[in-house]
Amino acid sequence: MTDFNKFYPNYVPWFNEQLHTYPLPDKPENLYKPVRYALDGGGKRIRPALLAALADSYGISREESLHAALAIEMIHLFTLVHDDIMDSDELRHGKPTLHVKWDLNTGILSGDALFTLAFKCLTERNSPAIYQANRIFIQSILDVCEGQSLDLDFETTEDVTEEAYLTMIEKKTGHLLSGAAKIGAVLGGASHKDLELIESVILAVGRAFQLQDDLLELTSSTDNMGKSLGSDLIEKKKTYLLINAYKAADKKQRSLLDSMLTPDYIFNNGINSIRELFHTLGVIEMTVNRIKQEAEKTRLITRQLPEPQQNILNTFSSFILNRTK
Amino acid sequence: MTDFNKFYPNYVPWFNEQLHTYPLPDKPENLYKPVRYALDGGGKRIRPALLAALADSYGISREESLHAALAIEMIHLFTLVHDDIMDSDELRHGKPTLHVKWDLNTGILSGDALFTLAFKCLTERNSPAIYQANRIFIQSILDVCEGQSLDLDFETTEDVTEEAYLTMIEKKTGHLLSGAAKIGAVLGGASHKDLELIESVILAVGRAFQLQDDLLELTSSTDNMGKSLGSDLIEKKKTYLLINAYKAADKKQRSLLDSMLTPDYIFNNGINSIRELFHTLGVIEMTVNRIKQEAEKTRLITRQLPEPQQNILNTFSSFILNRTK
Repeated sequence: MTDFNKFYPNYVPWFNEQLHTYPLPDKPENLYKPVRYALDGGGKRIRPALLAALADSYGISREESLHAALAIEMIHLFTLVHDDIMDSDELRHGKPTLHVKWDLNTGILSGDALFTLAFKCLTERNSPAIYQANRIFIQSILDVCEGQSLDLDFETTEDVTEEAYLTMIEKKTGHLLSGAAKIGAVLGGASHKDLELIESVILAVGRAFQLQDDLLELTSSTDNMGKSLGSDLIEKKKTYLLINAYKAADKKQRSLLDSMLTPDYIFNNGINSIRELFHTLGVIEMTVNRIKQEAEKTRLITRQLPEPQQNILNTFSSFILNRTK
Repeated sequence: MTDFNKFYPNYVPWFNEQLHTYPLPDKPENLYKPVRYALDGGGKRIRPALLAALADSYGISREESLHAALAIEMIHLFTLVHDDIMDSDELRHGKPTLHVKWDLNTGILSGDALFTLAFKCLTERNSPAIYQANRIFIQSILDVCEGQSLDLDFETTEDVTEEAYLTMIEKKTGHLLSGAAKIGAVLGGASHKDLELIESVILAVGRAFQLQDDLLELTSSTDNMGKSLGSDLIEKKKTYLLINAYKAADKKQRSLLDSMLTPDYIFNNGINSIRELFHTLGVIEMTVNRIKQEAEKTRLITRQLPEPQQNILNTFSSFILNRTK
């Protein structure tokens, strides 16, 4: 990814310091050491930066929005800790995942503690804005739970539609991102209309982001996604590309695709011929077009916002969409 | 247990109906069906009844306190769902636990959803009282996480002190109970002094409750605890009794105790001789005295409260302490 720190200059190092010095009790050690490990585990801090940048655009300092920024990052980290258990993932940012470094029980329990601390941070102040922020926060977390549930379902569902896939990724990643943006705006007293526009923009950016993720997995010549190349294909993960490939394929192409999407085939032949077939089926062009469409939608909607918010959202969108990994 | 429904007459059936009809989305089915299973799974509903009875004593109707009562029960259910995973428990109220009926991932995820829904219920209204209730709520949940962490630690700790044990059970069960009571009182506008007194009373009741649980496990002639008799002993669970038995024992008695606390010994000889040894060591009398002490403390503190709250807490304490299972 392009240097995300430049989206809201100097925020991320400052935020990391705040997160690192966030006061936690010493004991029980087996609860708070893992929590600290999760807080200090790295990551791009996209959500708190988006929240703080939007709050800032309404005149709220990063110090004033910090408690909400901490809350949104803690919730994000909580979802990662529990998702890593559910997906049996062993590495995150090059380090062992929490349940691997400790154990399953510690993973569940420190996730729960992060969840609680997130609410503690968010509601440590009391104001009508916090009340509104809290409602957005809760709805975003429910959406993440629903998205994760759908994602788990899709592992054992044969015919996932494009629409169902887009709903799933919107719930799983889009709503927490748009929640972060809306909470930042709410702290600054944004109007109801601004909030709706901000939500539409961020959901479009989120969709484009995920589609690009799916595309990069197939088109990257090197592994710069931080995971093994072709792993989504080996697992036959129902991405936007794969769903549309099967839809566009005739019977013969479908059999061919089936025979290619096996660990053996990919290990021996690489993914070039799969990429070729996807080209033939038109799904690469289709995905590129859909990303352009979402980016265009983003530009059109942001125009309806006041200039400071317009600038923030356009910059955010460029940073997210021009990444190369 | 004596019929807990009589503590706050007719509340529990009414509350169960509210819980049963609490609106949940239909989809994703694999998220909300398990959540519904947890909500409808039964239980004595001690926490919501205590919350509502205290709110009532300050003139707040059960309808007005319902959202907070739902929240406290949902948090309790969330802790059960995740604890059952951590403790590998397969049955609860005679039914398969959630992660057994579904699977580990569904258990983690529906626990998380219950957690979120609890916050949604609590904060669906906005008032200074809700703000205060929210702070109590959050601290209680953190205490539960800390208590569970200590409980997991104790499984592999040789020398657990009486003090450490009492801290653990206070965190694991006492604080959510006292949180329920305090939230009820806060909704009714209780003074800071009243809240402190209520907390002290409920924590004392909670301690007495747990000690009695430990005692009943050893002294019940039949299995009316809903778990197999002697199971704490077989697992050498560090209860108040066992900790003090080892403390009071001389070297010879300690070896005797070690040899008795094995599945084989208990299977062949029952627990009569263990009970005898505990009598000899004075730990049964000691525990009975400690329970009496806590009950006496309860009576002394409640006297400082206004009469309506005094009545509620004394009735609650009697119901909890006079149970036979």
